[in-house]
Amino acid sequence: MLNVAIFAKVHDPRCQGVAAELVTWLEARGCQPLLEAHLARHLGHPNGLSEETIREQAGLVVVLGGDGTLISVARLFSGREVPILGVNLGSLGFLTEITVEELYPVLEECLVAGPRITERMMLEVTVTRDNRELARCEVLNDAVINKGAIARIIELEARVNDHFLTTFKADGLIISTPTGSTGYCLSAGGPIVQPLMHCIVIIPICPHTLTNRPIVISDESVTRIVVKSSFDEKVYLTLDGQVGVELQEGDSIEIRRALKTTPLVTSRDKDYFAILRAKLKWGER
Amino acid sequence: MLNVAIFAKVHDPRCQGVAAELVTWLEARGCQPLLEAHLARHLGHPNGLSEETIREQAGLVVVLGGDGTLISVARLFSGREVPILGVNLGSLGFLTEITVEELYPVLEECLVAGPRITERMMLEVTVTRDNRELARCEVLNDAVINKGAIARIIELEARVNDHFLTTFKADGLIISTPTGSTGYCLSAGGPIVQPLMHCIVIIPICPHTLTNRPIVISDESVTRIVVKSSFDEKVYLTLDGQVGVELQEGDSIEIRRALKTTPLVTSRDKDYFAILRAKLKWGER
Amino acid sequence: MLNVAIFAKVHDPRCQGVAAELVTWLEARGCQPLLEAHLARHLGHPNGLSEETIREQAGLVVVLGGDGTLISVARLFSGREVPILGVNLGSLGFLTEITVEELYPVLEECLVAGPRITERMMLEVTVTRDNRELARCEVLNDAVINKGAIARIIELEARVNDHFLTTFKADGLIISTPTGSTGYCLSAGGPIVQPLMHCIVIIPICPHTLTNRPIVISDESVTRIVVKSSFDEKVYLTLDGQVGVELQEGDSIEIRRALKTTPLVTSRDKDYFAILRAKLKWGER
Amino acid sequence: MLNVAIFAKVHDPRCQGVAAELVTWLEARGCQPLLEAHLARHLGHPNGLSEETIREQAGLVVVLGGDGTLISVARLFSGREVPILGVNLGSLGFLTEITVEELYPVLEECLVAGPRITERMMLEVTVTRDNRELARCEVLNDAVINKGAIARIIELEARVNDHFLTTFKADGLIISTPTGSTGYCLSAGGPIVQPLMHCIVIIPICPHTLTNRPIVISDESVTRIVVKSSFDEKVYLTLDGQVGVELQEGDSIEIRRALKTTPLVTSRDKDYFAILRAKLKWGER
Repeated sequence: MLNVAIFAKVHDPRCQGVAAELVTWLEARGCQPLLEAHLARHLGHPNGLSEETIREQAGLVVVLGGDGTLISVARLFSGREVPILGVNLGSLGFLTEITVEELYPVLEECLVAGPRITERMMLEVTVTRDNRELARCEVLNDAVINKGAIARIIELEARVNDHFLTTFKADGLIISTPTGSTGYCLSAGGPIVQPLMHCIVIIPICPHTLTNRPIVISDESVTRIVVKSSFDEKVYLTLDGQVGVELQEGDSIEIRRALKTTPLVTSRDKDYFAILRAKLKWGER
Repeated sequence: MLNVAIFAKVHDPRCQGVAAELVTWLEARGCQPLLEAHLARHLGHPNGLSEETIREQAGLVVVLGGDGTLISVARLFSGREVPILGVNLGSLGFLTEITVEELYPVLEECLVAGPRITERMMLEVTVTRDNRELARCEVLNDAVINKGAIARIIELEARVNDHFLTTFKADGLIISTPTGSTGYCLSAGGPIVQPLMHCIVIIPICPHTLTNRPIVISDESVTRIVVKSSFDEKVYLTLDGQVGVELQEGDSIEIRRALKTTPLVTSRDKDYFAILRAKLKWGER
Repeated sequence: MLNVAIFAKVHDPRCQGVAAELVTWLEARGCQPLLEAHLARHLGHPNGLSEETIREQAGLVVVLGGDGTLISVARLFSGREVPILGVNLGSLGFLTEITVEELYPVLEECLVAGPRITERMMLEVTVTRDNRELARCEVLNDAVINKGAIARIIELEARVNDHFLTTFKADGLIISTPTGSTGYCLSAGGPIVQPLMHCIVIIPICPHTLTNRPIVISDESVTRIVVKSSFDEKVYLTLDGQVGVELQEGDSIEIRRALKTTPLVTSRDKDYFAILRAKLKWGER
Repeated sequence: MLNVAIFAKVHDPRCQGVAAELVTWLEARGCQPLLEAHLARHLGHPNGLSEETIREQAGLVVVLGGDGTLISVARLFSGREVPILGVNLGSLGFLTEITVEELYPVLEECLVAGPRITERMMLEVTVTRDNRELARCEVLNDAVINKGAIARIIELEARVNDHFLTTFKADGLIISTPTGSTGYCLSAGGPIVQPLMHCIVIIPICPHTLTNRPIVISDESVTRIVVKSSFDEKVYLTLDGQVGVELQEGDSIEIRRALKTTPLVTSRDKDYFAILRAKLKWGER
C-alpha cells in the first residue's frame, strides 16, 4: 500500500477540486493519501497530518500547483529520496510538467511499473562568516546574491576551485543548476541548459563590466564568492527564490553540487524541448 | 570679477592638490574662489562658506572628481543656471570630460570669451501617494524603480501620455535621460543615446517577459508608473543613484522633461564619440 | 471622384477576396479603383493598368498584405505624396495596422473627412565609389550592410557629421529609421523607438567588440560608412530588405534623413503601444 | 630525437625571427625541426618539406601566430594525435596561450618530462544531400550555418537525438564546442563555457523569435539541422571559420562529438580564467 502525499494551494478552488478527486482515486486503489492538516480541513478529510509525519511516511509526493509550490515541497523532502510528481493546473511548468489530464495515467504507471524518474541535480550553498558556518541550504534552482534596492553596485570576488575568476561589479550574481537555467537566469540573459547536464551556471546581473557574460562550469567545481564591498548597504542571498540570508562584507558563500538530488516523476509523452517551445512561445515571433 | 565655486573630494589628495593650485590661479586672475567650509579648512584657506552662500554667489562652478561628484553638485545648483565645469582626475567621465591638462586653457577661454556650454536635459520626477505629492526631484541621469533584494519580481504599470504601455514584470525599471544612457542603463542592456537628443529611454531591468526591450520615447511625453504589486516587500525609487524614496503599492511616479537644464562647460577639443571610444574601449576586442 | 489604387498579393486567395469586395465597395461610392494588370486579370476586372499609370493617378493607395508588401508599394510611390492605407490580412503589422474589419469604417472616414495621416520619416541612402554616385535610394525601414556568408567579419568605418565614431568589426551594420526599429533591428538587439521620433538608430550585427551597443543619433545627422576591409569577400548593402547593392572595399555609404516622408493612413482606434503589445506578446512570459 | 614541426605566418617578420631562433634552439638540443618548404625558403633553411611529410613525421607541433593559424594547423594534423603548442606573438589567444617568453621553458619541460596536454573536444560535422554524404569535417571551434548577405532570414529545423527542438528563423545558427564558445559565439550573445566541459552549444544568430536563447546540450547528443527554406538564396556552412560548403533547401547537417580530440600543450602557469580576464578586459569597465 503506497502512501501518497498530496500538496496543493489551499486557497485555489481548482487545486482543491483536483485534490479531492485525487484522494478518492487513491483510496479506490488502496493507496493512503497523506494530507497536511490545513488541506485536510479544506477537503473535509478526517486525517490531517503534520508536515513532519508526511515527510516520514510518504512513498510518493503529488504537488498540485506551479513550479514555486514544487520547489518548497522539494525542500521539505530534502534528504529523503521520495519521487515528486508535479501537476500544473495553470500554464505548463518546467518542473510541474504533468497536466491534469495526464495525472491519472502517470499515477497508474507509477503504481504498476514504478515511477519514471529523472534525478535533478541540486546545489549545496554554505555561508561562512568569520570562519563560522552561518547557513547551509540545498537549492534546486538557484542561489542569488543581490544588492539592496538603493545601492548601485556590489563587488563580489569569485573563485572556482581556488582559481580567481573575477571580481564582479554588478547588481548581483546568480549561481544556478541546469534546472534553474529556465527560471530567473533567463531574465538575466543566461543560456538554456538541458536539465540533466553536469554543470553549474554563473550569471552576473546587470554587470558594469560590459564584457562579463554567463559562464558555464563543471558541476565538480567548487565556487566561492566573497562579498567585497557593500557600500554601506545590505547584501542578500536568496535561495530558490524563497529563503533569504542577510550578508555582510567579508562573508563567503561556497557553492558545490549537493550529494542529494531531487527525483522528479516524468511523463513518457513529454520531452524537454516541447516544454521549452510551449513556455517560451517559440512558434511565434 | 567672476566668483568661481570649487568642489572637490576632500579626502582625495590629488583633488586637494589641484584645488589648491586652482585657487592660486583664480586669485592671480582676479577671480574670487568660493570654497565650502570643509574644503577650505583642508586647503588652509581663510574663507570657508556655506553651500547656500556658494549656491547664491557662484558665476561658474568647477568640480574636481568623477561623474558622481558632478551629479551631486548639479543637484545643489538645480534651478540656478550656473555653468558647471567637470574635471576628471581619474579616468575620463561622460560628464567630467575635461582633463587636468585642459583645465586652465578651458578656464582661460571661459574668462575671455565666456564658457562654451551644452545644456543637458533633465527629468522631473514626481511621486504621488493617495493623491498627495510625496516627493519631487530633478535628475540628470536617471530614475530607477527597484525591487528589494529578496523579492523576485515587481509589477509596474506604465502609461505614456495616458496610453497604456505595458505592465512590466521585472526586477525594476529605469527611466533615463540621454545623458544617463551611458550610465546604469548600459548595464541593463540599453542603447547609447547622443546627449542632446530629445528623448527619454525606458529600460526594464531583468524583465520576465523576454520580448520586453528598451523603449525610446519623445521628451515631450509624460510617463506614469504605478506600483501594482510589491509582493509584501518594499520597492524603492532611486534618483540619480543618490536619493532614495521608499514606495508602496499604489504609488504613482510621473516622469517628464524638467523645465530646467544643466549647463555643462565643454572643451573645444572634445567630441562625444571620442569619449565613448575611450570609456568603452572600442579600440579593443 | 477619388482614384484608389489597390495592391494585393495576387496568389493569396484571401487577398483576392478582399480586393474584389473592395472594388465593388469603391465603385458603389463613385470611386475609381486602380488595379495593376496582373491583379485585374485575377479579379476578372476589365481595366488593368501599368504601375506607372497607377503611380500618376492614385489619390489613395490601399495595400492588402503584410509589412513587406507595403514597403515595396511605398517605394513605387516614393516622391508622390499619396496616403497609403495598409491592411493586414494575417497577423497585425507595424505598418499594416488596419484590420479587414476596420477597412471600410476607415475608408468611409477618408472619403468624408479626409485620411488621418502620420508622416513616417525615411532615410536617403547614397553609395559612392571612386567619387562617383553608384546608387541612391530611399528607405522606410533600414539600410543593412552585411558580410557575405563565408566571411567572418567586415570592418566598417563610421563617421557622424564628419566626426569619427568607430570602426565596427562585425557581421554587419544596420542604419534604421524609428519605423524600422521594430523590424530587423529587434533581432540584432536594438531598442524600440516610437515611430515619430526624430532620430536614426545605428546597430552593429554580432560585433566583435563586446562593448559596442546600439546608438541613437539625431535625424539631422549625416552618417558616412566606409567599407574598410572585405577580406577578399563581397559585402552587400540591402535597402528595406528588398534592394541589394554589391559593395567593394573603399565604397562609401552616406545616410541622411530623406526630404520625403511616407504618409500612412492610421485608424482612430489604434495606438502604437497596443500594436507593440500584440506583436511582441507582452501579455505573456 | 624529437621531430618538431614549426608553423609560422611566413609574411610576419616577427614570426620569422622567432622561427629562426627556435630552429637553432631545437638543433642545439638534438631535435629535428621540420619546416614546410615555403617557410624553409624564407628562413634560408636547406630542408623544406611537404605538409604531408611533416604530418607523418612530427612528434610535436609548434605554431607561431594566432588562434586562426593554430586552427588550420590542427586540421592538418586531424587524426594524428600530435601535441600542438600554440605561441601567440600578438595578443594572448584562447588557443595560443603560450607567450614567446614562456616558449623555451615549456619546450624544455616537453623534452624532459613530456608535454602537459589538455585534450580539446571536437565536433564531427556531416552534410547529407538526397541521402548522399556531401561533406564531412571535424571542427575545433564551431560550425556556422548562415544566410547569404541579401536574404533577410533562413529557416533551420533543429532536432536533438531525433527530438524536434524548434525551427529557427534567424540569420543563422552556430553549433560550437566549449573551445569555440569564446570565439564567434560571444559576438552572437553566447555564454562562456569552460573548455573541458562535456557539452555542445547551439546559438541562433539574430533570431526573429525574440525568446530564442543559446542552448547548452550534452556532448553525447546528435544534432541534426535541416535547411527548410532558403527564400531563393544560398545558404552556407562554414567550418571553423575556414572551410565553406554551399547548402541547398533540404540539406541535412548532422553534428556530434568527434571521436578524435585536439591535444594542446599547456603551460603550468596559465589558467583559463586568467586568459578570460586578459582577453575580455575584465579589470575594466
